[in-house]
Amino acid sequence: MLAGVEVLQAIKEQGHITRHPVEVVAFTDEEGARFGFGMLGSRALAGTLTAEDLQRTDGNSISIAEAMRAYRLDPKRLREAARSASSLKAYVEVHVEQGSVLENEGLPVGVASGITGSVRLQFTLKGEARHAGTTPMNLRRDALAAAAKAISLVESKAAETGTTVGTVGQLELEPGGINIIPGWVTFSLDLRDMDEIRRDQVEARIVRGIEKVCRRRRIEVEFRTLQRNNPVPCAELVRNAASLACKELGIRPLELPSGAGHDGMQLAGLCPVGMILVRSMDGVSHSPNEYSSKEDCTDAAKLLYHTVLNLDGA
Amino acid sequence: MLAGVEVLQAIKEQGHITRHPVEVVAFTDEEGARFGFGMLGSRALAGTLTAEDLQRTDGNSISIAEAMRAYRLDPKRLREAARSASSLKAYVEVHVEQGSVLENEGLPVGVASGITGSVRLQFTLKGEARHAGTTPMNLRRDALAAAAKAISLVESKAAETGTTVGTVGQLELEPGGINIIPGWVTFSLDLRDMDEIRRDQVEARIVRGIEKVCRRRRIEVEFRTLQRNNPVPCAELVRNAASLACKELGIRPLELPSGAGHDGMQLAGLCPVGMILVRSMDGVSHSPNEYSSKEDCTDAAKLLYHTVLNLDGA
Repeated sequence: MLAGVEVLQAIKEQGHITRHPVEVVAFTDEEGARFGFGMLGSRALAGTLTAEDLQRTDGNSISIAEAMRAYRLDPKRLREAARSASSLKAYVEVHVEQGSVLENEGLPVGVASGITGSVRLQFTLKGEARHAGTTPMNLRRDALAAAAKAISLVESKAAETGTTVGTVGQLELEPGGINIIPGWVTFSLDLRDMDEIRRDQVEARIVRGIEKVCRRRRIEVEFRTLQRNNPVPCAELVRNAASLACKELGIRPLELPSGAGHDGMQLAGLCPVGMILVRSMDGVSHSPNEYSSKEDCTDAAKLLYHTVLNLDGA
Repeated sequence: MLAGVEVLQAIKEQGHITRHPVEVVAFTDEEGARFGFGMLGSRALAGTLTAEDLQRTDGNSISIAEAMRAYRLDPKRLREAARSASSLKAYVEVHVEQGSVLENEGLPVGVASGITGSVRLQFTLKGEARHAGTTPMNLRRDALAAAAKAISLVESKAAETGTTVGTVGQLELEPGGINIIPGWVTFSLDLRDMDEIRRDQVEARIVRGIEKVCRRRRIEVEFRTLQRNNPVPCAELVRNAASLACKELGIRPLELPSGAGHDGMQLAGLCPVGMILVRSMDGVSHSPNEYSSKEDCTDAAKLLYHTVLNLDGA
């Protein structure tokens, strides 16, 4: 975000007159932590966020529409956020890599070749809450014991392919007494692969496996798809502009896929999109230890500046 | 509780003068759901609840002492609740069976031969919270994936003996984002067996197994013992009085162990203790479906009445 503002500032300070308007946008709720449905801001700008989507609720049954109103935003004006394809020449996003490729290559920045897509599911397992002391092991319908098998299954099925990543990041259970067998468990699944077909095959294996575990344990299982983002290749227009900019800065241009999802993928249907990735220390992300050096961030801002000017001239 | 009050009422209505005072006591917090440390009321009466115990905290870091003060109870007066051994001839508790023995035997009520004891542990697993999309499966230190293996281990090690029951009833994780690998998980273990030695052997196997799982996965593991209640046999004095009372009511006297923990076990060091168990439908307990019929509860109250009179005369 600050790199974008810095680019506008630099263009103004240098008295440069661009052929196209250059805009900076700050999207809300890319992560989807609250509603299990991310990239709300970019979906709104792409015109793909629907009134129905706004009915999705958080853990306290508050809908997106209600949360907007509490923030003095009017859900009815949703469509006003949408941009037309003709108004946009290209979209460029700067983001930390969140992986270890640039660090291993000794490069401060790189150019995204594409953005991975994640499938997100939510599973609900229903067993029977009974007394932990008086219910023999063989008569239990323990929803958490079944969930434990499911989590192990996610891990092993994702690892099998060598490229897929599968994560259970959220889990809740009821009733939650230390001396009560859990009767109800819900957990999330986030599954990704740059290869959409492979990802969907792993998804099918996991779902079938979990259904089998639950059948054997007399546990009822339900699941629903929260989100299905398909992998998005980055546009040649943006990749070329960014690679040229790397050369102008004396940095070896390296293209690499982004393993994370990003707002840019929501705009891929609207205009050419691309990304500049910044070296992450130890590949750590979504952690308080996430870190990119000031120097690398400066290189990223410079690369964005030259990429924008190259796109303006293209 | 109501059966106890009913017995007092009946004694009074019938103008019966007992040789011993008959008291009814309602203990607080038998379950230990809030502080992971149950039977607070009966520990206080037994004189075994210490000022140190009152420093234990709930999930919001509120101590038992603080909770008492908020309820206008003075933690400093704790010792005043303690009773001396010389002031008590016997203790009888009425409780639903929470198992299926009486139902299978076609009996409304039974006499407890003993009360099982539970060991309660809390495990904390520390891995590393990282991005779910950019962290390859083989580089993860996923605390929940390790916890899943631990839960499966609890299940299999408890089932091995045929008599032990092991339950993970509580589990929490952090940071809890749908796209973040869990870096921290805590979960409870409740382990019971009428055979104390066997129970402790299973406990040791589970602890060793979890440590092994965590070592292999580069997960730090800590555990602490929340509670260690040893099985308590019921006193012959009370068992005989209750069995005689069964015969007086025309009910076949059946002795059976109670698989659950009860307040009575806290008083076993103070005076002879015993229990009357009431038939549970389908053995269900700690569930909204827990049910004992009015008729069976009436039989339990009658049995308590005769047991108390027998104890008074003994």
